[in-house]
This record gives sequence, C-alpha cells and structure tokens, in this order.
Amino acid sequence: MPFDQYVTRVNAKLDGYLSIQGSLTEAMRYSVLVGGKRFRPILTYCVASLFNTNQQSVDSSACSVEFIHAYSLIHDDLPAMDDDDIRHNQPACHKRFDEAQAILAGDGLQALAFEVLVNDPLLGSQMKIELLSTLTHAAFEMAEGQAIDLSIVSQTVDISVLENMHRKKTGALLSCAVDLGAITARCSKQDRNILRDFSQAIGLAYQIQDDVLDVEAPVGILGKNQHSDSDKNKPTYPSVIGLSESKQAYRALYEKASNDLNLLSVDAKSLQLLIEKLQTRSF
Amino acid sequence: MPFDQYVTRVNAKLDGYLSIQGSLTEAMRYSVLVGGKRFRPILTYCVASLFNTNQQSVDSSACSVEFIHAYSLIHDDLPAMDDDDIRHNQPACHKRFDEAQAILAGDGLQALAFEVLVNDPLLGSQMKIELLSTLTHAAFEMAEGQAIDLSIVSQTVDISVLENMHRKKTGALLSCAVDLGAITARCSKQDRNILRDFSQAIGLAYQIQDDVLDVEAPVGILGKNQHSDSDKNKPTYPSVIGLSESKQAYRALYEKASNDLNLLSVDAKSLQLLIEKLQTRSF
Repeated sequence: MPFDQYVTRVNAKLDGYLSIQGSLTEAMRYSVLVGGKRFRPILTYCVASLFNTNQQSVDSSACSVEFIHAYSLIHDDLPAMDDDDIRHNQPACHKRFDEAQAILAGDGLQALAFEVLVNDPLLGSQMKIELLSTLTHAAFEMAEGQAIDLSIVSQTVDISVLENMHRKKTGALLSCAVDLGAITARCSKQDRNILRDFSQAIGLAYQIQDDVLDVEAPVGILGKNQHSDSDKNKPTYPSVIGLSESKQAYRALYEKASNDLNLLSVDAKSLQLLIEKLQTRSF
Repeated sequence: MPFDQYVTRVNAKLDGYLSIQGSLTEAMRYSVLVGGKRFRPILTYCVASLFNTNQQSVDSSACSVEFIHAYSLIHDDLPAMDDDDIRHNQPACHKRFDEAQAILAGDGLQALAFEVLVNDPLLGSQMKIELLSTLTHAAFEMAEGQAIDLSIVSQTVDISVLENMHRKKTGALLSCAVDLGAITARCSKQDRNILRDFSQAIGLAYQIQDDVLDVEAPVGILGKNQHSDSDKNKPTYPSVIGLSESKQAYRALYEKASNDLNLLSVDAKSLQLLIEKLQTRSF
C-alpha cells in the first residue's frame, strides 16, 4: 500500500516548506502539522504514479493543495463561521492561538500554497501555469462553497442546492488534487477527462459519507465534535433524503468512480484500493 | 496627468473581473468598488508606461495587486483584528454584510488575485510566473506584517521594529506593484533594482505619512476613523520618534525616492509627479 508512504513523504515536504522564520510560522505549522489524513496529497501522488511520474515533480502540487485545505479548515472553524473548537483532536487554531492569528495564518497559508508552486525549480513555466490555473480556481470555488454552506443554515433546501454546495466546498479541491496529478503526468486529454469524472464522483461521495459519519461515528473518532452539522441546523444529506438513502447514494457514487477508472488507458489499481479504503473509513 | 486615466481604467477592469455570478460576488464587489485611491495600480501602470509598455498587458497585474490590497483591508477591519467599522467612508465589509462573509470575501479575493494573472491571455507563461513569484511573496509578507502589527499593540518598541513591520505590512505590496510594472515592461536589471530602491523608499514614506495623517488630518477626510492607531495603543512613528521628526523622516524618504528615479535609463517625469502628489496628500 503506497498511501502511508505518500503521507510520510508529504508530511516531510510540508514541514520543509514551513521551516521558515516568521511571525506566522508557529500558527501555520501547528495547523498543518498537527494532523490530517492527507487525502488530497494522496490523490495527487496516486494519480501521477499511474503514469509513472517522478514523485519529486509532484511534491509542490501535493503540498499546495494541502496548504489550501489547511487554510480552509482554520477559517471554517472560526467563531464567525462554523465555530468549532476542536480539530484533529486538538484545539482549533483560534483556540490554541487567537482569532486574529488564525485569520492571518489562514491568509498566509493561501499565499504560501501558490508561492510553493510558482517557485518549484523542477517544473517548467507552462506546466506551472496549468497547475496554478486549476488551483486558483478551486480555491475560489471553495470559498464560494463555504459561503453557500453558511447561507443555508436553518433553511429547507432540496438536494440540488446541497449538491452544488458540496461540489464547490469540498469537491472543487478534491477534483483539483486529482487534476494536479494528471497535469504533472502529462496524461492524455481523454484520461484527464475520465479522471475528472472519477474525482467528481468521489468528491461528492466523500462529502455524503462525511454527513453520515457525523451522525453515526463513535464519539472521539472524528477528531472534531460529532453532530457538528446537525447541531448547527445545517441541512445534510441524512436530514434531506434520510440516512439509509444517503448511504446508498455515496456507495453508488464510489461504484461509479470505480467504473470510471476502468476506462483509463492505464491500470489504476492503487486508486481502486483507495476507493475501497474510503468506503470503509470510520472518520 | 495620467493618474485619473489609470484610475478610470483599473476601475473598469476590476468591475469586469468581478462581473461573475456567485455567492461572494456582492461582498467582493462592495469592498473593491466602493472606493479606494488605487495607489498600487497607478504605480504599476506608471512604471510600465516609462518603458512604453502597452497598458493592456498591465491590466491583470494592476487588478491583482488591488485585489490583494482590498482583501487585506477587509480582514484587517474585522473585530478580531483592527476592529474598524468604517472604510472608504462606508460601513466596513463585516458591518455591511457579516463577519463570515467578510472573511470569505477576503479569501475569495486573494484567490481571484492570482487567478486573473494566471489566466491573462495576453501574457506568456514565463512572464506570468515572474509576476506571480513577486505577488505571492508580497501577499505572504503582508500577512506576516499584519501579525507583527497586532503583536506590538501596547508594546514599547524601537523604530527598527516599526520599520520592519511597515516594510512587510505595507511596503511589500507597494514594492510589488512597482515590480509588476517593471517585469511587464521587461526593463533592464539595473532599472529594476533602481525601481526597487524607489519603491522601498516611497513605501515607508507613505506609511509614516499615514501615521502623521492619522494624528493631523481633519475629521471626515481619511475615510476611516481618525486616531485609529493611537486609540488602539499601537506604536506609530509619531508616538516613537515624535511628530516633527516623523514629518522630516517621510519627506527625506520621498526625496530619496525622487533621487533614485534620476538614476533610471528613462525619463520618469510621471513618477516624479506622483511623488509630488503624495507629499501633499491630505488622506
């Protein structure tokens, strides 16, 4: 299983990029290095590896997508946003430091995400621009998705609104993680499109599963407060279409994602394994 | 005087980039378009024009640097940061909307700043990477500068701490605005270095002058609350070295900036005019 190796690799690279002296370093290091499944970097490395791409050329992409993810968690946890005090079983950034530092650490991480890609000496300018085009757009969509999420608190919404919100809030960056791997691998346009379908399916599946786990996971497993969505009167898949229908929905999407992979011009065993792993995750 | 023309031009371009449908559009448009002197875009256009560079090729740089500036003002005004309710003589973003939307509008504007540069069809990849390298680094330094600013509230600091804070918080983005113009103009390395010296001098001069205006400007002129720094127990140039010494300091820096310009290989009349205009500004 290469996943653990990718996690070890990306953790070392993240640590390296954060080995800078500065007034925000402590809060940024805390938020990035305290924990996290590294799902997005794993996706990027996995996709690139399908096409035998050198891991070194994927490092900056894997780190940049994780920096964007980390910044979004810091800002989402703020009192004015989701008001969550626990993240990765530790105090959220604004509790460990303060709100101002949490806002700025998030701001700094967003800038750093783009900076590490821009300055990667291993990649050519044209490729960097392609990678940055995907990443900047995903980062923008993610902020929009969070705005939709906050706007529908206590609202009755139908499933299409929820799907659009998830597509932007979580799906955009997951798809981006896959796309960064595909771009670095210089795979064919056809494979890139198939991978896009795959990523959209797992992106939505992952989020519906999150909604289900928020209801069902044993206390202490999530690494954050349970029922955090329903307690905030946020509409969720279970609250809109029911729990068992939600489970059916995410399983069907994982199956679709698996079928998408079979259309690729290369063997995608590692991504199939990843889907299996995701299906059985408990957090 | 080309400055008004630059302001008109950049306002139209900013408006264009913000003509997108989305959940954050209203808050982003409000914050960017409600006001602002457009000092950074003016610098970018001015510098590029010294070398007869086509204005069209500068538009995305001018807008991106203004988007970064606008996002920083939104976040700086938040209650957890400087807690300012008035900006450009209007309610600050978090007062006109709410804190969550203000955080997200700022986040979205930072992403958009990089996105417009990445996707500019008029620029080559190599140039875009050079521009983005400058901009991402300045954005990061700016967040660090704000963190230093907050960390020295109620502290007794010496002038070198204050200077370092200003160099990052305001100076980095002003220097970047100049550098973006120089890069687009493909000017010589020597001219670029001279322009860097110039920009560092006016960056610090501008900030010291801001500190002086915060004490001296007539009520209603600043477009924000007066004495906002001293009321928050923030150390300022006047509070550390005195008012008349502060005036001397910024005038000397503007003079240095003017002398720097005389070393350029091209005539810099428009930038000399800009310095004159800055020296006599009342807000």
